[in-house]
Amino acid sequence: MTYCVAITVDAGLVFASDSRTNAGVDQLSTYSKMFCFEEPGERVLVLLTAGNLATSQAVVMQLKRDMKQGKLPNLSSVEHLSEAAEYVGEISLAQQQKHVNAAAGSGLDTSASFVLGGQIGKARPKVFMIYPEGNFISATGETPYQQIGEIKYGKPILDRIIRPETTLEEAALCALVSMDSTMRSNATVGPPIEVLLYEAGSLRLERQFSFGADHPYLLSLKSDWEQALKQAFSTLQHFDWHSPLQN
Amino acid sequence: MTYCVAITVDAGLVFASDSRTNAGVDQLSTYSKMFCFEEPGERVLVLLTAGNLATSQAVVMQLKRDMKQGKLPNLSSVEHLSEAAEYVGEISLAQQQKHVNAAAGSGLDTSASFVLGGQIGKARPKVFMIYPEGNFISATGETPYQQIGEIKYGKPILDRIIRPETTLEEAALCALVSMDSTMRSNATVGPPIEVLLYEAGSLRLERQFSFGADHPYLLSLKSDWEQALKQAFSTLQHFDWHSPLQN
Repeated sequence: MTYCVAITVDAGLVFASDSRTNAGVDQLSTYSKMFCFEEPGERVLVLLTAGNLATSQAVVMQLKRDMKQGKLPNLSSVEHLSEAAEYVGEISLAQQQKHVNAAAGSGLDTSASFVLGGQIGKARPKVFMIYPEGNFISATGETPYQQIGEIKYGKPILDRIIRPETTLEEAALCALVSMDSTMRSNATVGPPIEVLLYEAGSLRLERQFSFGADHPYLLSLKSDWEQALKQAFSTLQHFDWHSPLQN
Repeated sequence: MTYCVAITVDAGLVFASDSRTNAGVDQLSTYSKMFCFEEPGERVLVLLTAGNLATSQAVVMQLKRDMKQGKLPNLSSVEHLSEAAEYVGEISLAQQQKHVNAAAGSGLDTSASFVLGGQIGKARPKVFMIYPEGNFISATGETPYQQIGEIKYGKPILDRIIRPETTLEEAALCALVSMDSTMRSNATVGPPIEVLLYEAGSLRLERQFSFGADHPYLLSLKSDWEQALKQAFSTLQHFDWHSPLQN
């Protein structure tokens, strides 16, 4: 599985993704799930992928090929981010359909989902989540993040921390904590963890980071968060569990 | 959906369950998912249910009927908790199979899963998780809890807090926090929250509690935990996100 999250705050966007791919417990590999498309000063797009690796790789390859060959639409030609989301959705659906007949009855799931975020020109930065069926939804002020893959373990901390006024740096830290909670409870999500901070209006992707399994910051965050959580838990007031049959 | 958890510590067992049942967003109801069977001084059994409500109610009814009519095996007759788990699994499978043909193709899922825990005589307290297929697994020292239903949101805190030496009261608090995280992130899990603390060797169920949505302790725990989590998050050391392209 996979865990990817994109966070929208007033200051910009934060993207985070794990890199573990598994097709059964004896086929664990590492693949980046974060793809960046940048025309500095003009447009930036970041794509996160989850689901069938063959499908998501085929989609990314076609996105690059369409741009190179100038086939329209492509990520350089679209005028709005929502057009880009629609285009990615169409490509994804087409790639999945290529294998539908071969996969029928085999139990193979060729579906993939995507998070696409970025900024084009002077429009506001946006994030879309693209379903396997090709349709998509956008993150809003009330729902300031989009997740794909193993989304549940890391959702509670996002729900509690992320607000429109959260800084980019806090949002990036929260994404890492959300990722850490997911890795702690689910073996199919693993490092390297890629994190990208995009400052609204900059139209440049300059702050991209990769944390390997033994990155000192990732290790210390893991143990610091464990300690901080235990400390937080220890401050909670206990209920009087001794009164029998109390309601 | 549902969220139920049973925790095994050296001091005994803790059970917690929510009470929301939904069959679509306009059919929300409240049903207890915790069922207690007690012969004081001889045996105690606690059953938590998740999945299809018709199936789980039919199972509970048959468990009671078998005991009343003295049909063997029943929860009073079994000599080991694992026999009880096998018996519950068999009843569950039989109930599901009654409706398999009617449900075929309708998209209706008649499956149910169960957590069964307790103590019989001088044997150690145990907890089993019973799959819809009727087979079951037990909680152990390395895996000191069993969950059914919406299990992912509330798993990280259990993974971090529960150890064999955790007290019953701490385990009960942790179960409530795990429940709170689940309710915060998933609308299909809701109060009243039932919690039962069982002291190993007591062979009595005396500490059972129900927290309604407006129970002052549940409300204060909710806000205290939110505050404590935010405080914990604020203590984390930030990464230097400003160095461009750092790895």
